[in-house]
Amino acid sequence: MSKTLHKGEGCNFVLNDDNIVKEALKIERNKRIGQTLFFNKPISVIGYASSGGVKESKGPIGGYIDNKIHDDEINSKTFEKAEYEMLYSTAKKAVINAGISLSSIDAFLAGDLLNQITTSSFVARELNVPYLGLYSACSTMTEALVIGSILIDGGFSNNCLCATASHFATAERQYRYPLEYGCQRPPYAQWTVTGAGATVLSNSTSKIKITSATIGKVVDFGTNDLNNMGASMAPAAMQSMISLFNDTKTLPNDYDLIITGDLGKLGSDILRDLMKEQGYNLGQNYIDCGSLIYDGTQNCYQGGSGCGCSACVVNSFIFDKMNAGEIKSVAYFATGALMSSQSCYQGETIPCISHGVVIRSNL
Amino acid sequence: MSKTLHKGEGCNFVLNDDNIVKEALKIERNKRIGQTLFFNKPISVIGYASSGGVKESKGPIGGYIDNKIHDDEINSKTFEKAEYEMLYSTAKKAVINAGISLSSIDAFLAGDLLNQITTSSFVARELNVPYLGLYSACSTMTEALVIGSILIDGGFSNNCLCATASHFATAERQYRYPLEYGCQRPPYAQWTVTGAGATVLSNSTSKIKITSATIGKVVDFGTNDLNNMGASMAPAAMQSMISLFNDTKTLPNDYDLIITGDLGKLGSDILRDLMKEQGYNLGQNYIDCGSLIYDGTQNCYQGGSGCGCSACVVNSFIFDKMNAGEIKSVAYFATGALMSSQSCYQGETIPCISHGVVIRSNL
Repeated sequence: MSKTLHKGEGCNFVLNDDNIVKEALKIERNKRIGQTLFFNKPISVIGYASSGGVKESKGPIGGYIDNKIHDDEINSKTFEKAEYEMLYSTAKKAVINAGISLSSIDAFLAGDLLNQITTSSFVARELNVPYLGLYSACSTMTEALVIGSILIDGGFSNNCLCATASHFATAERQYRYPLEYGCQRPPYAQWTVTGAGATVLSNSTSKIKITSATIGKVVDFGTNDLNNMGASMAPAAMQSMISLFNDTKTLPNDYDLIITGDLGKLGSDILRDLMKEQGYNLGQNYIDCGSLIYDGTQNCYQGGSGCGCSACVVNSFIFDKMNAGEIKSVAYFATGALMSSQSCYQGETIPCISHGVVIRSNL
Repeated sequence: MSKTLHKGEGCNFVLNDDNIVKEALKIERNKRIGQTLFFNKPISVIGYASSGGVKESKGPIGGYIDNKIHDDEINSKTFEKAEYEMLYSTAKKAVINAGISLSSIDAFLAGDLLNQITTSSFVARELNVPYLGLYSACSTMTEALVIGSILIDGGFSNNCLCATASHFATAERQYRYPLEYGCQRPPYAQWTVTGAGATVLSNSTSKIKITSATIGKVVDFGTNDLNNMGASMAPAAMQSMISLFNDTKTLPNDYDLIITGDLGKLGSDILRDLMKEQGYNLGQNYIDCGSLIYDGTQNCYQGGSGCGCSACVVNSFIFDKMNAGEIKSVAYFATGALMSSQSCYQGETIPCISHGVVIRSNL
């Protein structure tokens, strides 16, 4: 039985006094300090939507997901087409939720895990709006939010649509083994999320706003196990997190919530340890989307992964809680492992990255 | 024997009176019209570099290439590692040519054709600067220039490095067949360029500047032949080109040079026809980088392709000519085919895109 966080249920995260972020806001008059960019104009989240597969919809955040998929094939001939259908419907739903028409979207920023990000490009073909294809593995959602915010801050875009998706069956086939092989998985593996998330950013006003973005650097601690993504990505999350804290002179406690993309249980424990070594204590206000999306009874090993993981969690549970005023400031670091299966077979270690955004409500 | 355009040799392109672009400059006080973004602050090209493989270095623009590679394996164990070495050395050379240190680069924007753009991510690991991974197939160079320009216009970046590369052996293996199979190629095929290009954009001043950018839409005319990229991509080039002309109220003759990325001879003939149907006459000032990089004696069928193709040509021949004052305005449309080999095997047609930038010297 899943411990379901039902829609509207109370949130246990400790809220911070808005005044704590004063120092950060003062700094934000600059456009960039270190790796962190500051947006003085409003970068508003005016719409968002999420999709989740069968497993995800039954998990703890299932109640918050817009589009619960009852068949992971989505009546498609291939899992790749199912992934495309999922991203397309999520993107459209986000635009509808924003209360605008598709013709008001002036840029579509998306990427996914499939070779040559075909899922995103096929959706862009259908949407027929200017498109910038991105690749940052499971950190794609925050890369899209970073570039979308820059487009809006510069006056180049009024409304842009940021989206990403992943599918368990397509990712497993491409990165590891086709499901039909029935391969055993090690206990430290994660489960690629069948899910999608889409956010409409705008220069108009709304309750939720992106106030800063931290562009990640590639970090590689020398791991090379395709089944252990959390351990590979934790150092990249650490690098970006410490950059945000240094650049804004803030501390973990200055955010109601710090979330990572998909480190899973093992990876987020490693991150806590790494941060502790650097003098930062990630307390109860730190969670990982990969740990949040499944519960212990769902046999998902260390938790969720894939770019749909944090995209789905943020565009459902997190934004809903921010809209309800239960969370006021979130530092969101999606994390990506930038290898290909070929690069691992050729003996390369796994380079990783984490792009972050700070999101605030009620500003 | 190649017809070599030696460095310093006279350029035959007809130069336009600077006044012709007055109308366009007037319009540029807006930040965006249609698909086209306008940069009021200087987006200066302060440095650039190129690499070319054995074939490319012997071609017509060979004399302009910085880093002529005499061994396409570049002393590496795999062709993938060779591609990485080529992009890395080109990126470093561009920074050196810009006369700045690597620590002054505040963003690295790159992508390539390999699955999960591993070439770019490995280079980003080495460079150790904030990195945004992009994927737009052979239109990646212009996508990088677009996003780099937006970063600089917004005050988020002082100097950013935009780069891409492709390698004949890695691309053929991934998209078609390993070279060892010795597959025959149809006469309408193109030849993936072994080459790289890198540009340093800056908010300081220089002779060459990017003044506008046109973000492409995905266009798919229903082709599905992995060997006929030019025919697939020509409609996307047409869509972006017409957008630029409409958005800026300019005509083909208002630019000294209009260049496409890698349509090849067949593709660029198709583009001329398509544009003619739409009422635009692409005259002698239109060339395709894929047609320019090899000559007819080099057995490269319709010419070059791959994201290294236009990246190499623009970061050598074109920028050299602009620096010398022989070309003053260039509309550069790189073109990308966004399929994967898997999507084609699954019966999908080929979605294409073309991002464009207008580059001017002596403004």
